[in-house]
Order: sequence, then C-alpha cells, then structure tokens
Amino acid sequence: MNNPILVEVLRGRLVESRHRGAVAVADADGGAALAIGDVTTLIFPRSAVKALQALPLVETGVADAFGFGDEELALACASHSGEAGHVAGVTRMLARAGLDASALRCGDHWPMAQPALIALARTGEPSALHNNCSGKHAGFLCVACAKGIDHADYWRPQHPVQREVRAVLEDMTGAAFSDDHCAIDGCSVPTWAIPLQNLAHAFAKFGTGHGLAPERARAAARLRAACAQKPWHVAGTGRFCTEIMQLFGARVFVKTGAEGVYCGALPEQGLGIAIKCDDGGGRASQAVMAAIIARFLPLGDAERAALAHYAHPKLHNWNGFEIGVLRVTGAV
Amino acid sequence: MNNPILVEVLRGRLVESRHRGAVAVADADGGAALAIGDVTTLIFPRSAVKALQALPLVETGVADAFGFGDEELALACASHSGEAGHVAGVTRMLARAGLDASALRCGDHWPMAQPALIALARTGEPSALHNNCSGKHAGFLCVACAKGIDHADYWRPQHPVQREVRAVLEDMTGAAFSDDHCAIDGCSVPTWAIPLQNLAHAFAKFGTGHGLAPERARAAARLRAACAQKPWHVAGTGRFCTEIMQLFGARVFVKTGAEGVYCGALPEQGLGIAIKCDDGGGRASQAVMAAIIARFLPLGDAERAALAHYAHPKLHNWNGFEIGVLRVTGAV
Repeated sequence: MNNPILVEVLRGRLVESRHRGAVAVADADGGAALAIGDVTTLIFPRSAVKALQALPLVETGVADAFGFGDEELALACASHSGEAGHVAGVTRMLARAGLDASALRCGDHWPMAQPALIALARTGEPSALHNNCSGKHAGFLCVACAKGIDHADYWRPQHPVQREVRAVLEDMTGAAFSDDHCAIDGCSVPTWAIPLQNLAHAFAKFGTGHGLAPERARAAARLRAACAQKPWHVAGTGRFCTEIMQLFGARVFVKTGAEGVYCGALPEQGLGIAIKCDDGGGRASQAVMAAIIARFLPLGDAERAALAHYAHPKLHNWNGFEIGVLRVTGAV
Repeated sequence: MNNPILVEVLRGRLVESRHRGAVAVADADGGAALAIGDVTTLIFPRSAVKALQALPLVETGVADAFGFGDEELALACASHSGEAGHVAGVTRMLARAGLDASALRCGDHWPMAQPALIALARTGEPSALHNNCSGKHAGFLCVACAKGIDHADYWRPQHPVQREVRAVLEDMTGAAFSDDHCAIDGCSVPTWAIPLQNLAHAFAKFGTGHGLAPERARAAARLRAACAQKPWHVAGTGRFCTEIMQLFGARVFVKTGAEGVYCGALPEQGLGIAIKCDDGGGRASQAVMAAIIARFLPLGDAERAALAHYAHPKLHNWNGFEIGVLRVTGAV
C-alpha cells in the first residue's frame, strides 16, 4: 500500500523533500489507539527494541548480581554517541563480568556524534567501545558470563543469550517469528522483522507491565526508571532520545532505531508507539514521534513548545541562516 | 502525483526501506528520451548545477585571465570532500584574485568525508576552505574581482555575479524563474527551483553545446574536459562523481546535489539526465544514476560490472558482514 506523506521538508516556500511512513499506537491489550498507513507489514525495528533486548539482563538477576545502577542499565538500552562517559560506563559493565573491550563483537566505528568523533580523533582511535551498541553487547556478555555460558559466540542467533532475547521479543510483541524474517543488524546480532502494530503493543506492555509476568514487569519498570534517570546514557549530548526523556522523565520512553524507526511508551496513558519512515529517514521519524507525543500526552505550555520545536524544526544553513522548515503533515 | 519506487534497500530477504523519485532524460532540443514519475514539478537542483553556475567564470574570459587549469575549473564545479588537495586548490584560486579564505561567504564546516574530517581534527580546525562549495565560491569571487565589482556581497541574489548566474540558468534550462521559486542554498547563494525535464534539457545542451552561443559552448566543453581530466577535484576519494568520471572520462559527466539530486550528461549520446529522490536520499539517486548510465551508454563488460556495483551495491555492517543489498527497481 501507499503510506501517506508524514513529513515535508520546505526550502523557502517550496516543498523540497517528503517522507512517507506508518505509525501505530496501541494499548497494552493490543487495541489500536491510532493506525496511520500500513501497520501490518513486517519492518525491522533495529535498535528501537534495545530496551526489550535488555529485559533478560534484569529479569535473570544478572544486573543485580553485578551491582548495575541506572547508568549501566540505560547503557544496555542505548544507541550512544560514543562520548567519553559512554565508553567509561561500558568499560565498567564489562569489568564486572571480568571482561574488556576485546570480548565485544559489535564491530568498531567512530563515534556517531561529530563532536565526540572530533574529540576522539585528537586523542586516539575508535574501538568496539565506541560502537553505539556497545552497552547492549556488554549486557549480553554479562548474561552469558553470569550464567557460566561460553560467551565467544554470544551474538549468533543460536547462542543461548540470543535465543532468550528472541523468546522475549516473541512474547512481548506477540508476533510470529520465522527464520525468514531474521536478518543481521549493524552490530551483527539478529534483527527480527515485526509489524508496527505488534511493536506498539509490546511497548505498551513495556510501559505499563500489563500482561507481563511479575519479574518481567519489574524488569521493564526498572529499565524505564534507569532511562528516565540517566537519559544521557541512552543517546548523548543534543540527541532527541536524551532531550525528550530529560524533559518528560518517566512520563515518556523513546528509543530510535536505524532506517527511520522510532519506538516509545507513554506509561501514564497506557500506550505504546511504533513509527517507521519508509525511506529510512531518521529526521522524519523523530519529528513524527514528537507530534505523536504531543497528540497523546497532556502538556504544559513549555512542554508543548518544546515538542513543536522537534515536530516543526527550523532549518539553517552553514552560515546559520534560516532556509526552511521541516513539518509534520496533517496525516499525523 | 505518486512517484514510483526507484530503489529498494534489502536487509536479509526483506525490503527494509524504499525510495521514490523521478527521472528525466532529454536531448539537446528538449525532447524526452525518458520520463519516470513527475518531471514537471519544481525541484531544487542544489549543487547538481554547479557546472552551469561556473559557466560565467569561463565564458567571460576570467578563467583564462587568471590562468586557471583543469584543477581550478573542476573545483569551480565541485562539491569537494575537503581533502588537503581541494583546500590547496581553492586557496590558489583565491590568491589569483588577490584574496584569501576570509573573502569566502559559504560558511565553515568540517570536511564531508570522514577520513578528511579525522585528518583535519588531528591537525587543526575547519574554515570556509573546507566547505564543499568553496571552489564554486572562489569562482564567483574571481569573476567579481576580475570585473572590478565590489565582491563583499557576491553571494546575494541582487549582486551582479548572481544575476549573471541566474541569467545563465534561465537560458540553459528554459525554465521560467520567479522570486517565489528562489530559496537559499546550504552555502547561502540563491537556489532556483526548476523542473527535472528542464534540468535534463540543460545538461544535454551542456554536454553537446547544441543550441548555445559559441562562447558558451566552448565554456561548457572546457568545464567538461576539466572535470574529465581532474575528477578527484569535483568530489574526492571514493566518491561516486569522482569514480564514475575516472572510469568513463569525457563520455560521462555527473554531479551530485543535496537532498537526493543528480544531474549528468552523456555527450556522445546527446543526452542530459536529471534525477530527484523524493525523500532526499542520496544513496538512491546515486544508484539510479548508475542504472541510467548503464541504460543509455554502450558499455564494455568491465564498465557494465562497475555500474552494477553502484546500481546494486551489497551492504555491509560494522563487522564487514554482508547484511543486504540496495537495488534499483524495474521502474528505472
């Protein structure tokens, strides 16, 4: 089907580019609160489900056994910018398992955030610690080590850690998984294709605990609280996930994924959110997430203004001149 | 209208993202050789028309007066990566006009190419010389200085240099320009919205000289020859524009523009090409350009294989694992 245009990018008075996509908002029983476009087709949620992938770390008791606090748990849910504090936190997580960066199999890359990249270039070289997924991988390694499982292949689909993650994702989303729907993520762990409506349902359950076994509900609450307390560890300086959770605290959970995915939860409203921009454009899915939060969350004036800044950001050129605006359309 | 899906991005066996867009291929009389999607709506060509914006530099005799060779002329048409050789060339251009980097009004930015960014971070800070448009701006400044015009406001729409550029673009494209169709480009000069079919026509004229005054036809031929001789100066290490013109020499001219635009010419076929990806995705317009070249240019086996590499590139993750493929659809 043709998904609607969710975002227009204007230069001067004309629309220069446009982004199509789909949005699902659901309650914890799976009831649809909103469906824009095709919410039934399989999409890869990528890093937007890291908080779900981190559930085993908490519900197995490994996070407690290793004395993890909010920073470590937020990093386990993070696509971090590779800033010094992120790297230090992941190093600390690995040390609790008796490991170091050499155990990580997420691959090396320069920090995602340009200021962090420049800072690192002036002092050294990137390692797997700078990979935006290193906190999630450290969490996987900790689970393997705490359970006494050989951790060498912790990233492979058939490893016990990934099988447990798969089972959690199947249970949370209620989606039918098959090997045909599995691909390899940027950091080499499996990524399972899941319909948007199932992802929204999963995040409503994650946000409320409704319908979850007690230990899973407690683990979800603890991960949400950690991200609300330490949102900088979930993303980084100037990033949307960080700034939104700094602004709203525990009232909003949001997490970006590559190729234009956003997932989130509004715990007080009992709602989960899942967004996919057809073309993979992160600028569009981020703006749509801001508009969806504004639609469903009761807001004060300052909060409303802050969300409008993300849903309709002014665009500037290299000289700082205002050259246009990005705007969420009436379809949202 | 709904433009067709031109490019699909697969992860594993599933389509993860898709890009819509339009393509115009025209001859130098304006006859359509190919029209995919809506080729009549206004689009901003951005940096894809730099070679047309550079025509006054050559046809006024300023390039000769300043002793410019292929490197300087290629830089005037360039969106360069900010590598050391690009910066040195632009510095040389400015020196011929008795100027230095302080005259540039394109704005500072870190080099577009990550290796160049890292190299610069280790030794210094970016300046306007590193701006990908600095060669074009140096050309504008040279025209102003050679003509004895105050160059302070050379980037403003009402400055004589920009009025001349506007006149050249109107003549080359045959499009009706109005102030309502003018916006500000990333480097602060005017960018005029123009239909794809007119851009394709303009590049057929640029590629053949057909229908142009003799001095303009000579200027176009000289700029094409400069880019064919020095394609590294038009973009940079590993960039599509550079590699395509290294491969095909004077048989193909291609130039990227921001927000998913590509323009080009196949001089021996008498054709001009203009591509716009609706969502601004450069990965899509580049792949489509490779497919369009393959469709219209007679190819040897090695050339065909090289173009297939760009039209259907395999995608790899941070560990170098092949995770999917980008493919141009049957619509192209």
